[in-house]
Amino acid sequence: MAHYSRLSKVVIDVPAADHDRELAFWGAAAGEPLTRFDRHPEYHGAELHGQEFWLLIQQLGQGSARVHIDIHTDDLPAEIARLEKLGAERVQQAHSWQVMRDPAGPLFCVIPESWPGTLNDGNAQRWD
Amino acid sequence: MAHYSRLSKVVIDVPAADHDRELAFWGAAAGEPLTRFDRHPEYHGAELHGQEFWLLIQQLGQGSARVHIDIHTDDLPAEIARLEKLGAERVQQAHSWQVMRDPAGPLFCVIPESWPGTLNDGNAQRWD
Repeated sequence: MAHYSRLSKVVIDVPAADHDRELAFWGAAAGEPLTRFDRHPEYHGAELHGQEFWLLIQQLGQGSARVHIDIHTDDLPAEIARLEKLGAERVQQAHSWQVMRDPAGPLFCVIPESWPGTLNDGNAQRWD
Repeated sequence: MAHYSRLSKVVIDVPAADHDRELAFWGAAAGEPLTRFDRHPEYHGAELHGQEFWLLIQQLGQGSARVHIDIHTDDLPAEIARLEKLGAERVQQAHSWQVMRDPAGPLFCVIPESWPGTLNDGNAQRWD
C-alpha cells in the first residue's frame, strides 16, 4: 500500500520567557501574521508567501530555543517505519504525532495529515 | 526604495563526523537527491517537491548539529537594517551573506539573491 510524505513545516521552539517577542519577531520578519492554532494553542503559524510550506512558533515550557522540521504523511505508521529504516529513532509520541531524532541528533516530527488527498503526486513524495 | 525578502531555505548544520550519514538520511527522507553546490562545497541541497523552498545540509567543522532558516533578499543592507529594527543582532559575515541571531537565540542567515526578478510580488514580501 503506497503512502505519501513531504517536508511541510519549519518550527521554532521557544521557551515561555522568550515566546512573545520571538513570535512578534518572526511574524514581522516573514511579513505574515502568525495566528494561534485553536486546537493546539502552544502553536502559532502561517503558510509562507506563495508556498505550500508553513512557519510555526511553538511555546516550550523550558529549554533553549531551537528549530525543527515537520514531515507530514498520510500513513503515520508506514512513514515512521520508513524513517527508522533510514536511521532515525523514535523519541516520544506527542498528541497525534511522533517525535523522532535524526542520525546527527536534531529532533523532527512526523505528523499525520488528516485531509484526504492533501498529499498527492503534485506536492509530495509517493513511497511504494 | 522598496526591496523584497522571503524565507527561502531550511538548513541542517552538521559536524563533519556525522555529515555523510545525515546527508544520506535527509536525501532519502525527503525523496530528493541533495546535490553539492559547486561554489560552496560544504553545502548540499534540493528544492523541495513542488515548492519554492530548499532543504540544505551544511558541513560544519565542529559543534553540535542544529537547524537554521535562511532569508533571501534583493537588498542585503536594507534587509539587515529591517531585521535589526525588529530585534535581531548581527553575528558575522560569511561569504556574501550575513549571519544573525533572533531575539530568542537561534541563528539565521540573510542571503543576497543575485538573480534580478527572482524575488517578486508573487513569491516574496515587498518592504516599502
